[in-house]
Amino acid sequence: MNIPTGFKTLTKVDEALKLIDERVTHKVEGYEEVEISEAMNRICYEDVISPVNVPPFNRAAMDGYAVKAEDTTSASIKNPIILKVIGCIDVGGAAGIELKPGCAIEISTGAPMPKGADAVIPYEETRRINEYIEVYSQVHPWKNVSLMGEDIKIGDIILKRGTIIRPWDIAVLASVNILKVKVLRKPVVGVLSTGSEVIEPGESIGEGKIWNSTKTMLKALILEDYGIPLDLGVVEDDENKICEKIMNALTKCDVIITTGGTSIGRSDKTVNAVKRVGGEIIFHGVSMRPGKPTAMAIVKGKPIVMLSGFPVAALTGYQNFVRRVLERICGIKFPPQPRIKAKIDRRIASQLGSREYLRVKVLRRGDEYIAIPLRLTGSGLLSSITQANGIVVIPENVEGYEEGDIVEVTLLRGVDEY
Amino acid sequence: MNIPTGFKTLTKVDEALKLIDERVTHKVEGYEEVEISEAMNRICYEDVISPVNVPPFNRAAMDGYAVKAEDTTSASIKNPIILKVIGCIDVGGAAGIELKPGCAIEISTGAPMPKGADAVIPYEETRRINEYIEVYSQVHPWKNVSLMGEDIKIGDIILKRGTIIRPWDIAVLASVNILKVKVLRKPVVGVLSTGSEVIEPGESIGEGKIWNSTKTMLKALILEDYGIPLDLGVVEDDENKICEKIMNALTKCDVIITTGGTSIGRSDKTVNAVKRVGGEIIFHGVSMRPGKPTAMAIVKGKPIVMLSGFPVAALTGYQNFVRRVLERICGIKFPPQPRIKAKIDRRIASQLGSREYLRVKVLRRGDEYIAIPLRLTGSGLLSSITQANGIVVIPENVEGYEEGDIVEVTLLRGVDEY
Repeated sequence: MNIPTGFKTLTKVDEALKLIDERVTHKVEGYEEVEISEAMNRICYEDVISPVNVPPFNRAAMDGYAVKAEDTTSASIKNPIILKVIGCIDVGGAAGIELKPGCAIEISTGAPMPKGADAVIPYEETRRINEYIEVYSQVHPWKNVSLMGEDIKIGDIILKRGTIIRPWDIAVLASVNILKVKVLRKPVVGVLSTGSEVIEPGESIGEGKIWNSTKTMLKALILEDYGIPLDLGVVEDDENKICEKIMNALTKCDVIITTGGTSIGRSDKTVNAVKRVGGEIIFHGVSMRPGKPTAMAIVKGKPIVMLSGFPVAALTGYQNFVRRVLERICGIKFPPQPRIKAKIDRRIASQLGSREYLRVKVLRRGDEYIAIPLRLTGSGLLSSITQANGIVVIPENVEGYEEGDIVEVTLLRGVDEY
Repeated sequence: MNIPTGFKTLTKVDEALKLIDERVTHKVEGYEEVEISEAMNRICYEDVISPVNVPPFNRAAMDGYAVKAEDTTSASIKNPIILKVIGCIDVGGAAGIELKPGCAIEISTGAPMPKGADAVIPYEETRRINEYIEVYSQVHPWKNVSLMGEDIKIGDIILKRGTIIRPWDIAVLASVNILKVKVLRKPVVGVLSTGSEVIEPGESIGEGKIWNSTKTMLKALILEDYGIPLDLGVVEDDENKICEKIMNALTKCDVIITTGGTSIGRSDKTVNAVKRVGGEIIFHGVSMRPGKPTAMAIVKGKPIVMLSGFPVAALTGYQNFVRRVLERICGIKFPPQPRIKAKIDRRIASQLGSREYLRVKVLRRGDEYIAIPLRLTGSGLLSSITQANGIVVIPENVEGYEEGDIVEVTLLRGVDEY
């Protein structure tokens, strides 16, 4: 009889993260070259250097008249200086004409400065009288002019290796006429469900079976985190079969996620299977709730994250640990999740020594946010996931909160008014 | 001579948002039916009702023995009760066997409860002696049992109309064997660049021309906000041509965004063109920086947002106003952007009465975040966009910040250690 004994020791969440940082050494390598319109949320593979200046020429930064600054010396409303308007440069055209001393050229914002001019006087500081203008103030050289290369110079690094490319980065690439960019290959993340009770959605259900929801969720999470999910299917609680699946997947994946089979129990085979294929367990059992039976190993240099089979527990494990693994192997840092302060609307108890992830419904009442805890029981409680729009993290050293306490909430969705 | 006069009045950002809420009445209608794996970040079109119970049967919530609770009455370590083990139910199998009084059936977590049993005693509360167990504690009916429908009942609403579908929502759909879901048609957002100086990336540049970066960025933003960008091309500063482009696009788009031509100047034609096609201007000129020359109109019931041609100003206008328009026409609420508190590392001046969006570089030093303002000049300054990982919003009634002041930063990317 294999009587379970529970976890002998539990690893704290922060220790587990430290272990990931220390022990995960695999790196995603290789690149693809993609059109900039396809580059969103991809990881920049190498420093990108600008081939051009932005702006590409000295250009007017205001609508008005291009002048030689020294021609405006000591101009004022009482003593305006008169200049002759000898032409007009529209935006989009070539400058063409050259400015002569004592003259001015009408110019639009964005138009190239004519030769001989070094400043723009805005309309507001002038009055037009037929072919002449009165200039009411003095301008300094290069006033109201955007200088060539002022924004970006030829040879400037415009995008650093390792940047997650966002829409404004694409704008910068377009502005220097770069149409393709090298991006890091996407990490391939295998997802294997274990559990003799698990069948795929769409299959007809028999007694004792449940539809697999955790794998579908994990694949969506991986996609959102810029990875390629590789569906490794479902395998029953059989160590040999789990071993085989993992061995086959190792060469194809940068990371493997398994679900189920990590508790200390009769049907919990995953951790044993991972050990049998040479896995070095780096932690097994984490002092968090939900998600206590989370484990991690390195097999042939690749990280394997073993999550609970219960969807809410798997989600907590994914968000804590898989995302950190992805950051490590891709050399990136995900943007943080949004957080707000809210007033908790009822007393909440928590277990000392364990970090708890409490799902809450946040509402807004005037300037105040109210967090309503959803029922806690069971890491499988799917309904709490869809009702919740936030998570309150209760640290290990806190026994809970009293009604009215201000807590920090990580937001999963937008917040409605009361 | 068409001498510009500047904006007569500027609309405050909050007023502009209120005007959007009041005046934008167009709604995106119609749905698509998609596989749940394709449903991520789509908008749920109708309430989704569960066709099944979750769990689908009463199941063991712990590893141990299924018993009749009343058989354990007053069991204790000193006075254990002896039950005969008459079988074993593994997870994934049918219960099959029926529990008789005075008996117990070994059971795994997740396995279906046998007929006659109403509680599970965990291994820890028992000792196995051949075909018998000693039971050391009393259990109450339904202890350690997940009841059929405890999580989700047949007929429960599992996903509300208007929800932006997230990975955990997909899990819930999978768990009740729903494979396809009706989602709102994606909003079609047309993007038209105006400006005689603007050419498309890839085209060879002539004097006075610049490559279009703003449109490329806006298309990426629209994609990320779950819309379909429709590229309406570039049109020179010609009212007739702008009118024609807008008229052609109106029937195909839910929203039109234009860039350029909204200042009060010689070459700024967009607002006039929109008026000529029957556009009712709801604001023109906003007291914000960058992005002052932002305008909005309703044409034949469709919203048109006219943004600055400068990428940073267009981005500010997009994030403030286009996202709000998308929320209105789709009936959704985007999740908030992440914010942190940071200490500003140098004095920053701001114009009273104007809301300023200051790009900053945020670094982490120990437990503290430091925000380093990037240079402010010019709304076209692309380099500030890629260097920044955050934005400080300086409200209208604040004249600026002193070095060391704590400010709220909206984060655009992850934060590095110092």
